[in-house]
Amino acid sequence: MSKVIHFNRTGGAEVLEFAEVDVAAPTAGEVQISVRALGINRAEIMFRNGEYVIDPVFPATLGYEAAGDVLAVGSDVTEVRVGDRVSVIPAFSFADYGMYGERVNAPAHAVVKIPDGISYEQAAATWMQFVTAYGALVSMGGMRAGDTVVLGASTSSVGLAAIQMANMVGATPIALTRTLNKEQQLRAAGAAHVFASSDPELPEKIRAVTGGQGARLVFDPVGGPGARALFSAMADQGIYYQYGALSAADIPVPVMDVLSRHLTLRGYELFEITTVPERLAAAKLFISEGLSSGALSPVIDRVFEFADIADAHRYMESGGQVGKIVVRV
Amino acid sequence: MSKVIHFNRTGGAEVLEFAEVDVAAPTAGEVQISVRALGINRAEIMFRNGEYVIDPVFPATLGYEAAGDVLAVGSDVTEVRVGDRVSVIPAFSFADYGMYGERVNAPAHAVVKIPDGISYEQAAATWMQFVTAYGALVSMGGMRAGDTVVLGASTSSVGLAAIQMANMVGATPIALTRTLNKEQQLRAAGAAHVFASSDPELPEKIRAVTGGQGARLVFDPVGGPGARALFSAMADQGIYYQYGALSAADIPVPVMDVLSRHLTLRGYELFEITTVPERLAAAKLFISEGLSSGALSPVIDRVFEFADIADAHRYMESGGQVGKIVVRV
Repeated sequence: MSKVIHFNRTGGAEVLEFAEVDVAAPTAGEVQISVRALGINRAEIMFRNGEYVIDPVFPATLGYEAAGDVLAVGSDVTEVRVGDRVSVIPAFSFADYGMYGERVNAPAHAVVKIPDGISYEQAAATWMQFVTAYGALVSMGGMRAGDTVVLGASTSSVGLAAIQMANMVGATPIALTRTLNKEQQLRAAGAAHVFASSDPELPEKIRAVTGGQGARLVFDPVGGPGARALFSAMADQGIYYQYGALSAADIPVPVMDVLSRHLTLRGYELFEITTVPERLAAAKLFISEGLSSGALSPVIDRVFEFADIADAHRYMESGGQVGKIVVRV
Repeated sequence: MSKVIHFNRTGGAEVLEFAEVDVAAPTAGEVQISVRALGINRAEIMFRNGEYVIDPVFPATLGYEAAGDVLAVGSDVTEVRVGDRVSVIPAFSFADYGMYGERVNAPAHAVVKIPDGISYEQAAATWMQFVTAYGALVSMGGMRAGDTVVLGASTSSVGLAAIQMANMVGATPIALTRTLNKEQQLRAAGAAHVFASSDPELPEKIRAVTGGQGARLVFDPVGGPGARALFSAMADQGIYYQYGALSAADIPVPVMDVLSRHLTLRGYELFEITTVPERLAAAKLFISEGLSSGALSPVIDRVFEFADIADAHRYMESGGQVGKIVVRV
């Protein structure tokens, strides 16, 4: 038997329930993991709230990121063995797998070995954030030295990952945040400039720090009416990647900006990377190099105990964190 | 001296004035043309109104499309000779050249010979519409057999050109129009389906005729709040090209549609094709083949006399036409 998290209705953190379940032996293409740490993601809160790209079927499981030890492998699994320290890349649907548990099965294509010197907590805080940033900015957007990239909700784990990745390739990260309370933390994390996302002069300020050109890339999980100003701050041929839908409101796109400067808005999910083997392989290579060189390093804000996982959700909902929220199992 | 059209303030068709001007001899890279026909474009009306991507500097000239005879060429011009029948591709700014005149200079890179059997009126009605449609749908969007493409304002010259081009490559054109008054004309012009752009069930109808998939490409000069429904009607990885800004209002983009199906919105101008020599060369080749085979054939709605060019503007503004409005000079 394994203790896992279920929920039987959508709602606040209180809907999360512990359940004792029989975890089936892993079938072909599966790995069973004794979980030691979980990474908490906003997608899980949206799914719990019934506001995610897929709807839950009850009892619903959830959780994209785990790190732990391999307990058993399916018949055709050769990449990892019993006893290996592994972590899980979000490359599946909550309809099929959920990592919130003491013992869980995961699809083998999503399981990678943890490099030496990386803890379970760090490993559980790595893949969602770095693959998400890599997919839009590097794989699709071709981010390179000289680019300026504007990062919405930059104190999130993905935002911090994007700051590191921009610096890694020689691009200039501009960090947006709701208030300027965390400006020093963002600068310490590598942000070249920090602006409040609600600053009425945001387009002018972004133009000022880009020699009048505007930013070539915007990477924003927020969207909504506030995103309108970012289109005014974009360079010719600029691309706005929307990845989080934190605001469910429409994004009001100013038509003359997109027309006169040939701007693009693109909805992006990391599954576009993690479900395509060659893209995922390239992502793993890029991120592993960054981790090895020290250019990339997951920022952990706080670690909760498994019994307090609902509090970990509440803490993320309060918006106070800078970096990843991790749960120790 | 040459009679040309100027305007000295923005406003309605009444601001268009005839002026007698000295046309300078063509310099290097220029061709002087005795104009026989002009194609009228909505861009010229927007420019006249002060609502275009560039603002007029007075006295302002305008006009993207002309056909006529070469009167003189600049020192380095070898592609055309005095006496050649030529037409003009929109590949310049109204800040530099305007084709509304009896005798005008044009940049040599924008001047092409008229094939045998094509009249001046037809030649003046060719390049804007076919290059505009080609650039977004074929060059960028990769339109191919099996695609479904939704066309906004489909009774416009560009809309009709896009219908022909979709059929040319084996794609399925869905024509949108404000009312269904022109449904039979659109079907005769090659539209596979015709829907009213304001139909509240438009997304469902587009899904129904695409086996539930939605359209891979949307090519829309309108935008504004009405474009929202088109995002609901798009297939996975679908691309919405906005090219006309006929509505100056923001386009409200539904975030869960773009996120869950990885949709793209892209602002597009034909100058992205006409100002890049290799792209323009590919466009000329594609369109010339289509004209030769008969797959492409400009639809002319009505021909005005040069003295009545303000009426030609008013007629376009009334929105009654199906196809190109041409002025005989």
